[in-house]
Amino acid sequence: MNKSMISYMLGWLLNTIAALMIFPFLVSIYYKEPSGKYFIICALIYLVVGFLFTRKRPKNDKFYAKEGYVMTAMAWLLLSLVGCLPFFLSGEIPSFTNALFECISGFTTTGASILDNVEDLSRCMNFWRCFIQWIGGMGVLVFMLALIPLTGGQDLYLMKAESPGPNVGKLAPKVKKTAVYLYAIYFALTVAEIICLLIVKMPLFDSVCTAFTTTSTGGFGVKATSLAGYSPAIQYVVSIFLFLSGINYNFFFFMWIKRFKDAISMEEVRGYIIIFWIAVAFITFNIIGKGFNGEEAFRHAFLQVGSIITTAGFASTDFDLWPSFSKSILVLLMLIGGCAGSTCGGIKVSRIIIYIKTVKKELAQLCHPRNVKIIQVDDKPIAHNVLRSANNFFIVYIMLFALSTLVISVDNLDLETNFTAVASAVGNIGPGLALVGPTRNFDLYSDFSKYVLMFDMLAGRLELFPLLVLLSPSTWSKK
Amino acid sequence: MNKSMISYMLGWLLNTIAALMIFPFLVSIYYKEPSGKYFIICALIYLVVGFLFTRKRPKNDKFYAKEGYVMTAMAWLLLSLVGCLPFFLSGEIPSFTNALFECISGFTTTGASILDNVEDLSRCMNFWRCFIQWIGGMGVLVFMLALIPLTGGQDLYLMKAESPGPNVGKLAPKVKKTAVYLYAIYFALTVAEIICLLIVKMPLFDSVCTAFTTTSTGGFGVKATSLAGYSPAIQYVVSIFLFLSGINYNFFFFMWIKRFKDAISMEEVRGYIIIFWIAVAFITFNIIGKGFNGEEAFRHAFLQVGSIITTAGFASTDFDLWPSFSKSILVLLMLIGGCAGSTCGGIKVSRIIIYIKTVKKELAQLCHPRNVKIIQVDDKPIAHNVLRSANNFFIVYIMLFALSTLVISVDNLDLETNFTAVASAVGNIGPGLALVGPTRNFDLYSDFSKYVLMFDMLAGRLELFPLLVLLSPSTWSKK
Repeated sequence: MNKSMISYMLGWLLNTIAALMIFPFLVSIYYKEPSGKYFIICALIYLVVGFLFTRKRPKNDKFYAKEGYVMTAMAWLLLSLVGCLPFFLSGEIPSFTNALFECISGFTTTGASILDNVEDLSRCMNFWRCFIQWIGGMGVLVFMLALIPLTGGQDLYLMKAESPGPNVGKLAPKVKKTAVYLYAIYFALTVAEIICLLIVKMPLFDSVCTAFTTTSTGGFGVKATSLAGYSPAIQYVVSIFLFLSGINYNFFFFMWIKRFKDAISMEEVRGYIIIFWIAVAFITFNIIGKGFNGEEAFRHAFLQVGSIITTAGFASTDFDLWPSFSKSILVLLMLIGGCAGSTCGGIKVSRIIIYIKTVKKELAQLCHPRNVKIIQVDDKPIAHNVLRSANNFFIVYIMLFALSTLVISVDNLDLETNFTAVASAVGNIGPGLALVGPTRNFDLYSDFSKYVLMFDMLAGRLELFPLLVLLSPSTWSKK
Repeated sequence: MNKSMISYMLGWLLNTIAALMIFPFLVSIYYKEPSGKYFIICALIYLVVGFLFTRKRPKNDKFYAKEGYVMTAMAWLLLSLVGCLPFFLSGEIPSFTNALFECISGFTTTGASILDNVEDLSRCMNFWRCFIQWIGGMGVLVFMLALIPLTGGQDLYLMKAESPGPNVGKLAPKVKKTAVYLYAIYFALTVAEIICLLIVKMPLFDSVCTAFTTTSTGGFGVKATSLAGYSPAIQYVVSIFLFLSGINYNFFFFMWIKRFKDAISMEEVRGYIIIFWIAVAFITFNIIGKGFNGEEAFRHAFLQVGSIITTAGFASTDFDLWPSFSKSILVLLMLIGGCAGSTCGGIKVSRIIIYIKTVKKELAQLCHPRNVKIIQVDDKPIAHNVLRSANNFFIVYIMLFALSTLVISVDNLDLETNFTAVASAVGNIGPGLALVGPTRNFDLYSDFSKYVLMFDMLAGRLELFPLLVLLSPSTWSKK
């Protein structure tokens, strides 16, 4: 284990976070909020510590898969700790556990909150909540890769460990270039949404924050009622950008470089679009007449499907009151998630496609044991280790799910609450159903259960394996 | 597809069922119940039809994997239809859907009922309910293999398709011999339980029926209160036999032929015992003092864990009222199930062991991509196709689970009810929680949802693939 390289990079991470804390500080100056000073205090401390660790670049910059996973896991733990301090020190979130929960929920783009009323927070803290979702959405290590010169093999391993999906789609031959492209698309989507939201007359502060949490599919809002209090026009704009944010960024990249044919032939994007609109259609027809007219039913279905499949977690209405069928669709979408190579959580559409194809192949092979079929996606064969990894991902996902649901049941809440709380945490969604439904929050859980859910959020965001590698004894054995 | 061979064997199946209907008829004579005549009417019809199909053995007795799956699936559909007719024709279960549900729940050893009060049925019908669980437990095709001379490759393929578990453990070189051994152990367990139950003063009729549904891990009872009305001694006897019935029959076989070392070194059996007693311990401590003293807590925990992990589904108390933690343990046990090579449903302990080992291997491989490790169970390497099949089983299991929960949610019952109803059906358990808890029944679902649950029960009993092969278009394409 190359520990000196890992601490060097963690040092850079501290510097990066310190730099990013300038933005909420500027917000606090604009709104004349005293709690903004904590961002400067934290930033200075992080800079000093970061400086100590980054003074000298280690000579040995060898960096393999193991280091990639460990580094990613440690980076996210560090991020969570340093990111939550302003909430805690300012006293705006008095419990450390809650501050940490809110921060992890932010960075992992979960969007689950322990706050009773988010409007009690100062503007700069609210900005920070939304901003860390934006940073976490595309990945802070990817961000560092785009900015900081790192050579050796480390870039690819980091990107592999942090990026969602079974397969890292490299947009360019160099990892640094890929990271720049990804952030460029991300930035463009965010700016486009801010402009659209301003056009439909959302206030500037709300527009910026909402755009941050839409494109990152995070789902934090600056209002206690999430999106329910905004105009239908604003809700439609958010829905459209949610839909776009669930798409694999490779699609946008292909569009950008005018390879339209490659873009529209992506099986995952097609699958995503089909699932998305079938769900919208079913829910619309299921809730129409049940308190909603046709337009309202469609609008809420569109926003809720977009919000849940992309694992953002906004709410435009209390969907916990919807009929069982619509709620079950939402729970299913929680598990599926958006496309790989997007900012979404969940299992990812590409894996679902792989699973369906594997099962089809298994059926054919049961009947004709000697026929060997190869699984293809986008007309390319899927490598055996990608298949194996996708299968194992599924197994770990369900196991983590089952164990977490069991463990948090010590708080004696009902099964639906626990099940959807875990689904929401592992899938990085935000609200669940029942007692953690869209009008409630997660503060009813004990501190113990909150830590379990924090672990789930991090595990879900990093797609399980980095945290497991970090915790696995074999990683640290000398052999 | 060798259709003439399949219809020949289905004919034999009809004859077998006709022969088995003698037993409930004898019961009806003893208790002087007029409804017993329907067994004789049905048996005669089945014999005539069966005779027509078995008059001439087809010349071409080639029989491959495909035929094995299709034959198994069709056999179970036929069983369900012919088995339910006495319930329906006698008018004791007036709705055909309900009669079919009760029958499928019987043959698949699920034990879910649509009856409000099982004591309203006549004795012979109650006997038939319990007897079909016993027949279904070890498998009616295995029964036929033990009795009827079938040559060619068909025996193994049938056994593979009908027997639970990732790998068919052949107890003897010949399939016929294996089938005989299995039934011998099964029979011995059943008789031993009847004797023990008689010793603790359960009435004979109840003893026989309870032994049938314990060793088959079916869970039907002859009392409306399941086992709650019986004495603690009876409850302990049932619990012990439940525990035994969850064990892989290979274990008993090894004991029988005095290969004790092989028996106690079976990883699956050890895993099963560990899971079993940890669950009992946790639940005992969780419910102690909550309406139960120490002995009662242990007794109910023992019986309920045995009843749920073996997927029998007896109840000695209304566990839907237990704390969330205990209920969550039960839900987890529902998914796990007992050992392969037993009469249990669920995913099976051996598969869980394979999954855990696969994940461990994946973690090691992520860190050291060039290290190739081989997964071993009982010191034997697991063949690649067994691993692949176990993975695919898991994927199909969860998919079937998710889709069924979604589909039956059209009845607008709550998520906990739907989720545990499906868990109960796919895992062949019996009761679920909430509205399908141990004191309730499944009659509150619509006919549509009942058919979905029937499909799930059959799919769960046959471990998913036979039904999928039957329904897959590629099976029937001429190519």
